[in-house]
Amino acid sequence: MKHDNPKLIGQSVPRIDGPHKVTGRAIYTDDLKLPGMLYGALLRSPLAHARIKRIDVSKAKALPGVKDVITGADTPQIKYGNWRLVPESQDELPLAVDKVRFIGDEVAAVAAIDRETAQRACELIEVEYEELPAVFTVEDATAEGAPLVHDISKGNVSLVRKISYGDLEGMFQKADYVREDTFRVHAVQHAYLEPCSSLADADEGGRVTLWTSTQTPYIVQCLLASTLGIPENHVRVMKVMVGGGFGGKMELRPWEFCAAFMARRTGKPVKFTLTRVDELAYGRRRHGMTLYSKVGFSKDGKLLAKDFQVMLDGGAYNAMGPTATFLCGTFGNMAYRLPAYRYFGRHVYTNKPPASAMRGFGAPQAYFAMESQLNQAALDLGMDPMDLRIINAMEEGDVIPEVATVSSCGFKQCLEKVRAASGWDEKRKNKKPGHGLGVSAFSFISGGVFNWFNTKYNFSSVEVRVYDDGTAHLFTMACDIGQGTDTVLRQILAADLGIGIDKVRLTAMDTANTPKADLGSWGSRVTLMNGNAILDACRKIKDMLIPVMFTQFDLNQIQDIAFEDDHLFVRSNPKKRLSFAECVYKALRGRRGEPLAAHGFYTPRNRGLVSPAFSFGAQVAEVSVDEETGLVKVENIYTAHDCGVTINKRAVEGQLEGAIQMGLGYALHEQFAMQGGRTLNTSFLDYKMPTALDMPPSVSVEVETYEPEGPFGAKEAGEGLAIPTAASLGHAVYEACGYRCQDLPITPEKILRALGKLK
Amino acid sequence: MKHDNPKLIGQSVPRIDGPHKVTGRAIYTDDLKLPGMLYGALLRSPLAHARIKRIDVSKAKALPGVKDVITGADTPQIKYGNWRLVPESQDELPLAVDKVRFIGDEVAAVAAIDRETAQRACELIEVEYEELPAVFTVEDATAEGAPLVHDISKGNVSLVRKISYGDLEGMFQKADYVREDTFRVHAVQHAYLEPCSSLADADEGGRVTLWTSTQTPYIVQCLLASTLGIPENHVRVMKVMVGGGFGGKMELRPWEFCAAFMARRTGKPVKFTLTRVDELAYGRRRHGMTLYSKVGFSKDGKLLAKDFQVMLDGGAYNAMGPTATFLCGTFGNMAYRLPAYRYFGRHVYTNKPPASAMRGFGAPQAYFAMESQLNQAALDLGMDPMDLRIINAMEEGDVIPEVATVSSCGFKQCLEKVRAASGWDEKRKNKKPGHGLGVSAFSFISGGVFNWFNTKYNFSSVEVRVYDDGTAHLFTMACDIGQGTDTVLRQILAADLGIGIDKVRLTAMDTANTPKADLGSWGSRVTLMNGNAILDACRKIKDMLIPVMFTQFDLNQIQDIAFEDDHLFVRSNPKKRLSFAECVYKALRGRRGEPLAAHGFYTPRNRGLVSPAFSFGAQVAEVSVDEETGLVKVENIYTAHDCGVTINKRAVEGQLEGAIQMGLGYALHEQFAMQGGRTLNTSFLDYKMPTALDMPPSVSVEVETYEPEGPFGAKEAGEGLAIPTAASLGHAVYEACGYRCQDLPITPEKILRALGKLK
Repeated sequence: MKHDNPKLIGQSVPRIDGPHKVTGRAIYTDDLKLPGMLYGALLRSPLAHARIKRIDVSKAKALPGVKDVITGADTPQIKYGNWRLVPESQDELPLAVDKVRFIGDEVAAVAAIDRETAQRACELIEVEYEELPAVFTVEDATAEGAPLVHDISKGNVSLVRKISYGDLEGMFQKADYVREDTFRVHAVQHAYLEPCSSLADADEGGRVTLWTSTQTPYIVQCLLASTLGIPENHVRVMKVMVGGGFGGKMELRPWEFCAAFMARRTGKPVKFTLTRVDELAYGRRRHGMTLYSKVGFSKDGKLLAKDFQVMLDGGAYNAMGPTATFLCGTFGNMAYRLPAYRYFGRHVYTNKPPASAMRGFGAPQAYFAMESQLNQAALDLGMDPMDLRIINAMEEGDVIPEVATVSSCGFKQCLEKVRAASGWDEKRKNKKPGHGLGVSAFSFISGGVFNWFNTKYNFSSVEVRVYDDGTAHLFTMACDIGQGTDTVLRQILAADLGIGIDKVRLTAMDTANTPKADLGSWGSRVTLMNGNAILDACRKIKDMLIPVMFTQFDLNQIQDIAFEDDHLFVRSNPKKRLSFAECVYKALRGRRGEPLAAHGFYTPRNRGLVSPAFSFGAQVAEVSVDEETGLVKVENIYTAHDCGVTINKRAVEGQLEGAIQMGLGYALHEQFAMQGGRTLNTSFLDYKMPTALDMPPSVSVEVETYEPEGPFGAKEAGEGLAIPTAASLGHAVYEACGYRCQDLPITPEKILRALGKLK
Repeated sequence: MKHDNPKLIGQSVPRIDGPHKVTGRAIYTDDLKLPGMLYGALLRSPLAHARIKRIDVSKAKALPGVKDVITGADTPQIKYGNWRLVPESQDELPLAVDKVRFIGDEVAAVAAIDRETAQRACELIEVEYEELPAVFTVEDATAEGAPLVHDISKGNVSLVRKISYGDLEGMFQKADYVREDTFRVHAVQHAYLEPCSSLADADEGGRVTLWTSTQTPYIVQCLLASTLGIPENHVRVMKVMVGGGFGGKMELRPWEFCAAFMARRTGKPVKFTLTRVDELAYGRRRHGMTLYSKVGFSKDGKLLAKDFQVMLDGGAYNAMGPTATFLCGTFGNMAYRLPAYRYFGRHVYTNKPPASAMRGFGAPQAYFAMESQLNQAALDLGMDPMDLRIINAMEEGDVIPEVATVSSCGFKQCLEKVRAASGWDEKRKNKKPGHGLGVSAFSFISGGVFNWFNTKYNFSSVEVRVYDDGTAHLFTMACDIGQGTDTVLRQILAADLGIGIDKVRLTAMDTANTPKADLGSWGSRVTLMNGNAILDACRKIKDMLIPVMFTQFDLNQIQDIAFEDDHLFVRSNPKKRLSFAECVYKALRGRRGEPLAAHGFYTPRNRGLVSPAFSFGAQVAEVSVDEETGLVKVENIYTAHDCGVTINKRAVEGQLEGAIQMGLGYALHEQFAMQGGRTLNTSFLDYKMPTALDMPPSVSVEVETYEPEGPFGAKEAGEGLAIPTAASLGHAVYEACGYRCQDLPITPEKILRALGKLK
């Protein structure tokens, strides 16, 4: 049933967490202090690949102020990983046992009375290693006879994903135009402003409470319990404010285990907080990939076939790599109609910090390949790149083979609108020298259907309680990690019950209190999934309140009750009304004091295998290139985005701006300097993330569709936007100076070299 | 239905909070620190009765480090009090507006960067008072033309309670023996080891979170919201560990308001912690009373009539005085059959710190009068005091007129057993000089029926969640304030679901999370009321699990399922079994991921007007009196107590020992030295509370009955035990030396004076 569009939907409701953040009152995990708290430090491997022969912690233990020192030998040695559905994919241990596999692999942990003592104790731990040959590229790792990062993974390939449908060979033969390209994309980092921090406390029964900077509390709860060898519900995971995640905080992390394990051993709270160096040198990253793509078109530009072969540089452990390997193949055929498609994706271990999920999750890489090829193909076919996309674009009702049916799609409108907004036709007609325009498009998911975590619970759950003071309380395990969902979810609840948003209290992310379960913040799932769970709960609350109206006003059973402006009223006769508060009071009386509360759930069922809904968008980048310095100046970015019905306009704009910032960093600035598995640039001075001052002007164009599976018609907003920038900039740079980038990032050196101005 | 008696019931399960308390890890409110927290201080009235003419806070505000200074003029000036059912009884303001009514009445509050600065700022506040004549005794207060503490209360009587049934005059005429006595009992203090402490924080929407040392979080939530003028659910009240309450922490307190009000004004957390001086000088106390009692007996000892007239010294405000006034009259006829009874109770204002609830709540005073009279009457009638009690004792099925029917009663067994255990008959036969034995008895309530707080919710509520790791989670607003209910409630849950107690997580007392509502810890209500709510929730959980067994084993519908040893099994064929964990897992699967959770509720209905159940007990005190010094040495205390089925044996013993300690203090040691409304003894050096080293030997005798209204047959344990000691000691002292006390406490001076050894 199509929802009404209550007043609150689409409004730029201010962020609930805004005032505390801008006034400095916001509390992050590292701000928490408990009486008697110990400070943790980690000893990490200095070698990329080595066997541990001996660890001697005696000197560390003897240091005054040290309360606990642990190595892998002290722990239950239970492997973990997010893909519980495939237990053999769970390849990590909190502390290394036999081998270290990357520079930074955790070897030992210390808890001491202060941070300095803990750090000094780490330095006193003696580890004897036997260094092993290491591999640092997917090509080396998959070469014959390469050293194995994990013994059980032959050829260092931990997971293979294949997709195949249509008559690939036949279609390529039918094609009038075929091109093959190999793209190389690099690893970048989330660079969330809050480094990871975790504080664990244990009660007298050995139950653990963990405050942690995470986007997936339920996942952390389950995996922490499993690695500690205690019941799942002896672990309680909570969050305070989280300063960004972007996919980098969705797994169990070694310091979460170490904090909990040592809190149980010492009987004292233990806190670990990483430094920026830890994050940059050893933290999760977006997958570097090598992508081979062969595409075939008819002469009128119809896309006929695609052969897509990808190797993901996974680093030393699977982390979220298996999902990225799956999704990368799915993104390969998500935006355009494609009669024949073959995907062969391999997740490859190397002796580097593990790659994992990061905003876009396989998409920025896959779309960089696809969109770059489309732009080149359009030139070769003599078509406008816009037109080439429009004739191939998905439409509502299209089936993505073996994935899902597209239930809402504003893709073509996005292309048309961004064309108009950017002045595409005119500017291309009157091209200025050194200037260029490039287009790129994307589609993205609104949460995942594939249950890789193998949860027993619904994908998303809430509880809603309503009170006779006219307020409501929303309990959810959904995680606002800075993206603003605490505001959007309150908006959905307030809109559906017709109460003011200031009336909604929100309690989020406490695995012992908020209803089981929610899989967390990733894959742009929160608004759609948790929003639907809220609507499910509201429906049950309304079923408690509507009878009061019928009794009160002796209504005919065909009457409908509206919920608006903190009142309930008969839709056909608004004078028959009760305040929301009074109606709750009467219902409470009728229930003889039993409070009004309802659980709501959402699990996508019969929505295919990937996602319950798909968003679409297109972006035009306008650049000028200084041919003397090779510097790219981004003149403007025009984006159109179909995110269904917009719940919070300003929040979507904020997502767009953040996405452009990340897209710019990915395309132009950010890159890890690596040497023998070692990350050399470990500060923000050297890892060049764009700041607010580097932001170009940008224009955002609304394309609103109604997604029937989404709450009030909403779907994904925010993650997909991080996808198109590399390809749109890439093509704009090509148009401006003739350099076509196939290996990100686009640097002045590469441009000058292409222009013959640098060897 | 009579419950089975599962293995856990009656066991001395160790206290859940024990290890943390004895190792010093327990966190109390004052241990909490939040970033940016301010420290509060209160300015109190130095006069017992005065009009406030002018307050100048300018110097205080100017002191560096001071962030806020408030007086009554800054506040919404909304009166509060626990008797919401009678709004005109709500006579308190957080900060005085026109008048101060006792030495210590709160006049202004400061929040500053540290405690010392806050205290200094208080000293800089200038208040100009116009002193008024004051009253310090109930006799003075009720005298013609006495100054009025509150203008609206004529004769300073704020509340009158009358009970009357039977032919009082006729019965007195029929009586063979009539006696009249007037007793004076003094005020004593709870002397909980944790002074009151409250920490408030406000969110960006003005919602308040208050951590406070309270026994009634729901009451504090409602009254704080009301005095702040904000919706009830914009206040969240939480507790950490509470170091005792005994009735002294069951109201909204001025510093709770001030912390919340100033947290909202300053945008910073504000904490108040009282000192022992604050507590002793200005804190709540047990009511001092003047009790006139006339009793008539037939010559064979049958109690025929009682005329009971009581004036309660309420101090400056009602506090819990109205309830004490009611209950005192009810306790006057609760233990014995009484054909005619008249009660006339008056709650009287005086210019002293307000009296309020304290363990026993009107009973220690009422029973001191009744039991002292019984002992004297027995002597005069030539009867054994034991026999006199036995022939008048209530029995199961007896009706307490206008109160309730007694559904379980082991009173006579208590008397018989304590007689045997103490060697009563033999010792009285072979009386040693200077030695004496005294008996006293009591009855007590198991929570109240009378809804003075006018709650909209059930009297007690819980939520129970069960998980497929075999654990359960109990959410309750019941308050463990040191009495051990967190342990007992876990025991009840574990016993009913047949799981180990280590499997039960408990979340208590968080008004935003734990189910609405529970009226708190007072009147010995928790075990019976919250226990029943737990059983109600467990029944619903069982309804989710039992179908799994029927499906799994294809059972005949007459089969019964047992819950024991972490398993469910067919009672008639225990081989048909599933583990509790597996059964929850299967139910969860069947519910397609919807977690297993149930609310449970209890409100006493059709249980009369006072309490759903009544406990009984008897105590023999054995003393020796040194006739040279007047010192009383307590040789032994023998107690028998009918608390229904004992849930936790050790917990009941602990209650008994604590009750004897309090009883001894009340009878022998504790007394406020007052001068013109000022409390002179404001430290534990001068306020002589017995310590562990002062404890006499004691013997406890079990009398187990089955209370059909109680969970597993349990009823009150702990509060009633504080009642009998004053009268049993009083009579023992009389037997030992001939001094009969009618005005507590029993001091060496009074004994020596009675013996003619002191003038």
